[in-house]
Amino acid sequence: MSSPASAPPLWLRDNCPCPDCRDPRNGQKLFQITELPAGLAVDRVHEARTADGAPGREVVWAPDGHRSVYAESWLEAHLSVTRAAPGDGRTEDDKELWDATGIADRFPEAGWSAYASDPAVTAAALDSVMRLGFVLLRGVPVRDRQVLDVARTFGFVRETNYGELFEVRVEADPNNLAFTGARITPHTDNPYRDPVPTLQLLHCLTNAARGGDSGLVDGFHAAALLRAEDPEAYEVLTRVPVPFAFADGRTELRAHRPLIGTDPAGRIREIRFNNRSIGTLQQPAEVLDAFYAAYRRFGELLLRSELQLEFRLSPGDCLIFDNTRLLHARTAFAESGDRHLQGAYADIDGLASTLAVLRRKATSA
Amino acid sequence: MSSPASAPPLWLRDNCPCPDCRDPRNGQKLFQITELPAGLAVDRVHEARTADGAPGREVVWAPDGHRSVYAESWLEAHLSVTRAAPGDGRTEDDKELWDATGIADRFPEAGWSAYASDPAVTAAALDSVMRLGFVLLRGVPVRDRQVLDVARTFGFVRETNYGELFEVRVEADPNNLAFTGARITPHTDNPYRDPVPTLQLLHCLTNAARGGDSGLVDGFHAAALLRAEDPEAYEVLTRVPVPFAFADGRTELRAHRPLIGTDPAGRIREIRFNNRSIGTLQQPAEVLDAFYAAYRRFGELLLRSELQLEFRLSPGDCLIFDNTRLLHARTAFAESGDRHLQGAYADIDGLASTLAVLRRKATSA
Repeated sequence: MSSPASAPPLWLRDNCPCPDCRDPRNGQKLFQITELPAGLAVDRVHEARTADGAPGREVVWAPDGHRSVYAESWLEAHLSVTRAAPGDGRTEDDKELWDATGIADRFPEAGWSAYASDPAVTAAALDSVMRLGFVLLRGVPVRDRQVLDVARTFGFVRETNYGELFEVRVEADPNNLAFTGARITPHTDNPYRDPVPTLQLLHCLTNAARGGDSGLVDGFHAAALLRAEDPEAYEVLTRVPVPFAFADGRTELRAHRPLIGTDPAGRIREIRFNNRSIGTLQQPAEVLDAFYAAYRRFGELLLRSELQLEFRLSPGDCLIFDNTRLLHARTAFAESGDRHLQGAYADIDGLASTLAVLRRKATSA
Repeated sequence: MSSPASAPPLWLRDNCPCPDCRDPRNGQKLFQITELPAGLAVDRVHEARTADGAPGREVVWAPDGHRSVYAESWLEAHLSVTRAAPGDGRTEDDKELWDATGIADRFPEAGWSAYASDPAVTAAALDSVMRLGFVLLRGVPVRDRQVLDVARTFGFVRETNYGELFEVRVEADPNNLAFTGARITPHTDNPYRDPVPTLQLLHCLTNAARGGDSGLVDGFHAAALLRAEDPEAYEVLTRVPVPFAFADGRTELRAHRPLIGTDPAGRIREIRFNNRSIGTLQQPAEVLDAFYAAYRRFGELLLRSELQLEFRLSPGDCLIFDNTRLLHARTAFAESGDRHLQGAYADIDGLASTLAVLRRKATSA
């Protein structure tokens, strides 16, 4: 094991676990980085015990004489790190990418009563959303506004201009193609919103129309395929901001974001794809040419049958999916037939928190 | 004016305004980019009139014979673009950066009754939030939960683990330093949340304690200063993901994001700064050294007095600010004194939408 003396001093001190440095009630730091003395250095290191009796090392700091006791186990885990730690579960690195064949055998689903009563089933379902991007709950009560109760099992509803929930059925004067019987190709929702809602729920109340089947595509997988097959097109789509827009009588939203959002390390983190709401790109002609060629190529890739998971929602089914990763679609349906879903948006950080707390309880049980 | 024949054909066709291509009710596109024929090209161009009689050009497309009529005014505005258009109002390019001296003379404020009744005052206040990052509403009714009504004047409340609203006052067993009387240095809220709440509201109900003054710092201005003074430190802070974390009995949130978030063009877009909730960075030692030196330098810069706008909230004041740009602070106060704020989170896309609709009405009036 490396010695604390060789660790970056500001980093080590910033992680001092003593109750003067860190609130024992919530782990929040009680000092600012700017309050640490100039020339901070490890003066001496002794063997010591932590507050709860575990073996550790005490660092005496120069120039201020502050003392920090670090557990051996913490030092072993955190010193001599040679590569960056895993992320927060949101990029391609922390996902299981899938295609239609690969997912069919492990289609993530759970029955509502088990989901609602058994924390292990809840945790497995939420874990599917984090890993695979979705879960299908079966046997959810066919009840008006039930979709909001489903969202509240793991997080908080994100209210938008569509309301707390939105009705997906044929409307007389629709403000959105979703509210007609038309076919809708794979897309993400609300790309004109920033922050975009990171989760979507769709709860099926009636599905007696011919057609109206559902489809899902793993956008991270599709983007990774594009990167492998046409790195230049991929690069263009991570770089060119696309002006997404939506307007009706009460609303005028726009967001300028690339179709493929990456983190600073270049990992795929967020897909936005929705031809309906792409406004007019204003860029030099050579950028427009490169963007449109890449956009079309990505669009064609997303339509490959091996990427499209197709299934039919039955009354009582509630689909929960990651709107920053998965694209959803539906086949056309007869407008005379009865088809009615209720949808809602929520955020995945709250879902991840609920999952983490469930795991904490499972570990301590 | 350039001819439509020289425009990138996919881009031009994607912007066809005809009712088969674009739903006249909401402007949504009715076709997918993948449905356009291969080898798409402009076949012929004629002078023509648009549906509402304006002068325009009709493009006849090969190979499918589709016809698109573009208004001359649209062609003039959109052909021969030589540089990228302005963005969506969210990066440094679309902001007025400020320091304490620069903002003092144009401190953005509005009286509640004018704000609530006069659309021009509402628009000016919301515009201040977009341009300067904040506005102070005065004379807001001192009423429990009023902060939620303020949020609903321009958008939607973002519910979090703290609830729909949160109380800022001394608590017996606080889960957050905010709920003690301690001094709090400039920070952004909820960096451990992703998507982070983009707006914060703080409504003052009582402020009779000694101390407890408020401070604001323009984080975009501070980041731009860092870039000018120490480009290497700036670069490190845009690149290294920081593990922000918050946990209590019911919650376990984490997000790995850089302190300075930039868009693909490298423009400053999002600041996260909160020492209290920075977890343990796990990176190779040389990255830790570089990050901590840069982090401390940025922290020192944020404390420069010329950057700190200081003022005191009085009962009835409600501050609305951009939590992706501004850092907020407060001086320590006597825990025996009575100080009570109610806070809420909301999102800036909804605020920008409300502002755009108000401007639309002002133009058409």
